[in-house]
Amino acid sequence: MLPETEFIKKILDRLEPDRSAGLLKGIGDDCAVLAQSGTKVTLVTIDSLVEKIHFDLSWHPPYLLGRKAAAVNISDIAAMGGVPRFALLSVAAPANYKQHLLDKFMAGFLDMLDEFAIILVGGDTVSSQELTFSVTVLGEMAEDEVLYRSGAREGDLIWVSGHLGQAGAGLELCRTHPHEKYQWPELVQAHLDPSPAVKLGRVLAASRLVSAMMDISDGIATDLAHICAASSVGAEITADSLPLSPALKEVASRLNFDPLQPALRGGEDYHLLFTSPAANSGRLEQLVKEKTGKDIYRVGKIIAGDGVKLRGNNGQTSDITFQGYEHNSSKLTWAANQKTQPAILLDDSDQ
Amino acid sequence: MLPETEFIKKILDRLEPDRSAGLLKGIGDDCAVLAQSGTKVTLVTIDSLVEKIHFDLSWHPPYLLGRKAAAVNISDIAAMGGVPRFALLSVAAPANYKQHLLDKFMAGFLDMLDEFAIILVGGDTVSSQELTFSVTVLGEMAEDEVLYRSGAREGDLIWVSGHLGQAGAGLELCRTHPHEKYQWPELVQAHLDPSPAVKLGRVLAASRLVSAMMDISDGIATDLAHICAASSVGAEITADSLPLSPALKEVASRLNFDPLQPALRGGEDYHLLFTSPAANSGRLEQLVKEKTGKDIYRVGKIIAGDGVKLRGNNGQTSDITFQGYEHNSSKLTWAANQKTQPAILLDDSDQ
Repeated sequence: MLPETEFIKKILDRLEPDRSAGLLKGIGDDCAVLAQSGTKVTLVTIDSLVEKIHFDLSWHPPYLLGRKAAAVNISDIAAMGGVPRFALLSVAAPANYKQHLLDKFMAGFLDMLDEFAIILVGGDTVSSQELTFSVTVLGEMAEDEVLYRSGAREGDLIWVSGHLGQAGAGLELCRTHPHEKYQWPELVQAHLDPSPAVKLGRVLAASRLVSAMMDISDGIATDLAHICAASSVGAEITADSLPLSPALKEVASRLNFDPLQPALRGGEDYHLLFTSPAANSGRLEQLVKEKTGKDIYRVGKIIAGDGVKLRGNNGQTSDITFQGYEHNSSKLTWAANQKTQPAILLDDSDQ
Repeated sequence: MLPETEFIKKILDRLEPDRSAGLLKGIGDDCAVLAQSGTKVTLVTIDSLVEKIHFDLSWHPPYLLGRKAAAVNISDIAAMGGVPRFALLSVAAPANYKQHLLDKFMAGFLDMLDEFAIILVGGDTVSSQELTFSVTVLGEMAEDEVLYRSGAREGDLIWVSGHLGQAGAGLELCRTHPHEKYQWPELVQAHLDPSPAVKLGRVLAASRLVSAMMDISDGIATDLAHICAASSVGAEITADSLPLSPALKEVASRLNFDPLQPALRGGEDYHLLFTSPAANSGRLEQLVKEKTGKDIYRVGKIIAGDGVKLRGNNGQTSDITFQGYEHNSSKLTWAANQKTQPAILLDDSDQ
């Protein structure tokens, strides 16, 4: 765990948005939101990926790693409902680093940008002892459509946009079952090559049926806790409503783990997590189906109070607040001895 | 040297600005320039600083390093004539890294932002084996005032905004004369705590008297070569017109090196380097004096052809094109065995 107390305190002193300075949202959401001269806003997000901490090239093909380095940042734009537009990339690599690996990384990075018509507008390459990618993505959207984490209200329903725990189970397969992992290609792919939900994010933001949104990068137990904290509400999700794929259930049974664990605590699924007033449910499901052909899944409701509760199949509730994917800490992880871990976040931000 | 051929080629394929996509300038200048909805543009720049490559904490106080990490990025905004507005910071540090060093770094980083009323809007902290800072700064300005590298024309005069070689000599003092270095505090300070020329950049951009501009990060021999390449012109500078401080001359004499070497090839002075039609000279000098109280120095002229020539005190010219501060290469450095080096640039960009 990075030492964070004073370090973070100094940052948090600056948390307040300052509309007069053109800052609509600073630290504490998926992106910072900056006013443009008209009614549009600029979204901006930065993330660094460090070898052995965030990725492991012993199982991650460099082409797919390049795609993922772009995808996880694009997902932060999708999480506000924005259109990703521009990217900057800083690559730190050992001076003798293999060129063909960097080439494949770049090919993947640029292909992922192309899928969303994002233009690479800047970057630098520096030498270092370990491979590190820092990516900045800028997006754009109408100011009055931005979906923040802070809009959830008591009584709202909670939704996710896809199967949970896929990437977490895929990571576990890569780590511990390298020879059998491709029996479950969709799980491995969810870890190696996630898809940011840009189109769905746009549909939801434009619909005005949604009250709060973010992407699922650390597991719903942690990500929903961010929405609760930002919205000053609590949440209750029900175990049997969590969308689990047949593949996850099968591998959980074969490898003898509870599929709920990666679903709640596994990171990096990059689906959208959002809330909506109950009255909007029918229209919301119909609209998403119509515009994207996909299903969304209702997993719980926003309640008074704070924190995230899980109602188990036995009817009992337990507190799972911030018990998602842990970052360089032994506190709580769904799979022990993880070698590859997501970013330690600056407070509750993943910008 | 990082392996760059294919890697860079793939990037360069994407060099063309695409106005229809809102991109006015991509890779190849100090910042990318993005259209906003009105007549303003967004400027954006990213840079990474890696311990032992770009800085050495054995002589760099962490507070000043924090200031410098902000300053070098702010300088890229100044280099276009823009107003820096927002910053994002990604810190990668070993899990057991000393908290008080990071605190001091942050204090310096935030103080430098404060000097220019820049707001920190995002960031992340990740664990890594070596200390790395990635900084993104966004700025803003009127589209028709942006000063690119590409505007220099034959006959234009070439100017610099301050004494050259200060930071290079300061670095050399820190490296090799730790006990005597504070006999020349202005040189040491130029290396440890550079000041981005934001105010001057604004004055020059608004004046419409200037044809091309960038900041001096790699030494005038290299930086002027960037302007020549971007503008399809050549340049001739005269050795006896280069502004050398008494301190630089004194330390050069004491340590037995040619003061012209850091002036031409030393990086990180972060003064502005700019060109203007000859007819504008008087107005330009007067305006800068009036608005900033400072002098600017005429060092040469833009000529037909390409590359950068130095006219020596003996009247002979020599080619110094791209012979500035070298990046992880033994090719050409003004001081041998440098331990601390600036970024390897992505082609000729330092975004």
